[in-house]
Amino acid sequence: MRIDSVQSIKDLARGAVLLGTGGGGDPYVGQLLLQQEVGRGRHVDIIDAQSLDDDAFVVSVAGIGAPTVLVEHLQAKGVCQRLLSRMENYLGRKVDAIIPAEVGGLNSIIPLALGAQVGLPVVDGDGMGRAFPHIEMVTFSVYGKTACPMFIENELGDSVIIERCTSDRKAEDIARAVTGVLGGMVYSALYPMSGADVKEKAILGSMSYCLEIGRGIRRARLECDDPFEGLLQILQQPALDRHARILFDGKIVDINRETRDGWHFATVEMRGLENPDDQFQIEVQNEYLVARHNGEVVCIVPDLIATLDRESAEPITGEKLKYGQRLKVLGLAAAPIMRRPECLAVFGPQAFGLKAPFVPLEERDKTSGRQ
Amino acid sequence: MRIDSVQSIKDLARGAVLLGTGGGGDPYVGQLLLQQEVGRGRHVDIIDAQSLDDDAFVVSVAGIGAPTVLVEHLQAKGVCQRLLSRMENYLGRKVDAIIPAEVGGLNSIIPLALGAQVGLPVVDGDGMGRAFPHIEMVTFSVYGKTACPMFIENELGDSVIIERCTSDRKAEDIARAVTGVLGGMVYSALYPMSGADVKEKAILGSMSYCLEIGRGIRRARLECDDPFEGLLQILQQPALDRHARILFDGKIVDINRETRDGWHFATVEMRGLENPDDQFQIEVQNEYLVARHNGEVVCIVPDLIATLDRESAEPITGEKLKYGQRLKVLGLAAAPIMRRPECLAVFGPQAFGLKAPFVPLEERDKTSGRQ
Repeated sequence: MRIDSVQSIKDLARGAVLLGTGGGGDPYVGQLLLQQEVGRGRHVDIIDAQSLDDDAFVVSVAGIGAPTVLVEHLQAKGVCQRLLSRMENYLGRKVDAIIPAEVGGLNSIIPLALGAQVGLPVVDGDGMGRAFPHIEMVTFSVYGKTACPMFIENELGDSVIIERCTSDRKAEDIARAVTGVLGGMVYSALYPMSGADVKEKAILGSMSYCLEIGRGIRRARLECDDPFEGLLQILQQPALDRHARILFDGKIVDINRETRDGWHFATVEMRGLENPDDQFQIEVQNEYLVARHNGEVVCIVPDLIATLDRESAEPITGEKLKYGQRLKVLGLAAAPIMRRPECLAVFGPQAFGLKAPFVPLEERDKTSGRQ
Repeated sequence: MRIDSVQSIKDLARGAVLLGTGGGGDPYVGQLLLQQEVGRGRHVDIIDAQSLDDDAFVVSVAGIGAPTVLVEHLQAKGVCQRLLSRMENYLGRKVDAIIPAEVGGLNSIIPLALGAQVGLPVVDGDGMGRAFPHIEMVTFSVYGKTACPMFIENELGDSVIIERCTSDRKAEDIARAVTGVLGGMVYSALYPMSGADVKEKAILGSMSYCLEIGRGIRRARLECDDPFEGLLQILQQPALDRHARILFDGKIVDINRETRDGWHFATVEMRGLENPDDQFQIEVQNEYLVARHNGEVVCIVPDLIATLDRESAEPITGEKLKYGQRLKVLGLAAAPIMRRPECLAVFGPQAFGLKAPFVPLEERDKTSGRQ
């Protein structure tokens, strides 16, 4: 799958906002970087993981820090290229492909921009199937790969290697602390893996899913009376075994935001358009974590919650939500691998301090008679 | 100069407390480590910098963090040995000698313990001529060497390299942030230098000065009516061109301690033994920064201030000061290199937020007619 047109980039970015579940950083800046490469006649290929040699050398490249700072630091390309070289020199071999750490938000596009720049393919897969705030919240780590050696660099060339860590959570804590000193936003090359690792431990097909979502929304606007109909068909394509439904249709009546301990906390309060007693609430910790309808949990992490404009079905990031906005809220089952117990231990509700247990979206729907 | 006896180790530690000017970490734990090596029949040689080949490979090894945590982390030796190996592997050559980053406090002894363990000599010199709280506050850095690549490791083997930094102050900030994540106390190998660098940029002779001070205090107790007489003679040996005097003789009437922004702030209030109107004050920011006698500055950083038991002349670290203690406070001119303008810019009064300018101890004494 070749990305060589502005339209396909916009489609990808649109899908990435939906899969970012309110967070992950607005992919817009990544989109600009990638468009610049395509404008220069370059392209990037998204390749099937099965096409990788088992001993291929694959790494992730990601931004770490506050995406709001990113706009001030547009030197991303030079930095990411240096990161690849440093990883290659350290491990003594050339990188064969890049794999996104997350498919939601900015970090789904950064690897594509880098791939276009240096002529490397990007694997159709990732480690989160959505966006999460921590680097250890990836299936790579759950299934035994380590983020280290992890290379960090900012646009000034300040550079750090986290060589070895007793846990990827500790690597996350170190990276976060270093990011604070280095200006609030850095880039990182991490999770060096083999092709065999990728086939076994990644969430496969997530980049093409992202592209299909973005393209599907665009086409559904033209082809369907209600673009959400077309979108739901794409999200629930039978081969993927992922349930989706509109959780709520209403408007925002209140948003409480708070930044605490380096996290962005918020509560989004909504009401039904016609019935103001119909109440809906989204709890946010960087990403959307849990949605409650009239007090009852209807969707919880790692299942995905997305906010979309109720007319155009355009996905909207959490930081752009505002009072009075009319939205449809979408629930989407996480990829099956994400719901395994060992994964839930790392990025299930308890990892975010939520008391409610994980119950799959479709089971909640069955119980409540919605399906 | 060979360190192979418990007595010489105790002498060194005693001198290191004096040169720690109230901070630098109690050298006691380092002393135990070194005594253990000597007890096993090992020794360490402190060598003259002039005996180094110009292209010799010299590095510093130091503890970073809260010395109070050190007691919990006694695996220092294994860690420091691994740090040396990592530095050697990274730069592709064997270390020829270790140079202490600071001569005051714990970090003057740690390099000796490591030297005894691995059979490497320790250079008779350092980068501070005393203790300072930051790794960029060394003459190595002032005169153009960089702390990077800087290797960090804790006793669990968590390990980080700060490869490159636009300033050593930033390397300090990163190291400090990483130390916080890694348990509050780590070890570091840093400031890789050549023999020529050491001869040109280090404070030479400081380790033998430290040993002479410690030994001199011990001997003066036996030989002099007042051990301070013997101590002052050693401190002011003509070849070194360093002035010293007893700034005050009195007792502690109040200590205000505060830990803020990762620093230990304190004010020590003293009064004359016979004249309670005779007031003396020491301002502390990890180390003793400035001493005032009846409101007038009498000694200021980088000149050294030390607190000693008024009977035995035993140097006492700042954390052991307590109400009612009877002390003599010593003022000691910093090594001449430390008083140059480029050095004062990095570790003079302004670097610690003090408004009073640096005036050399002996000039203050001349002005006030004390000399």
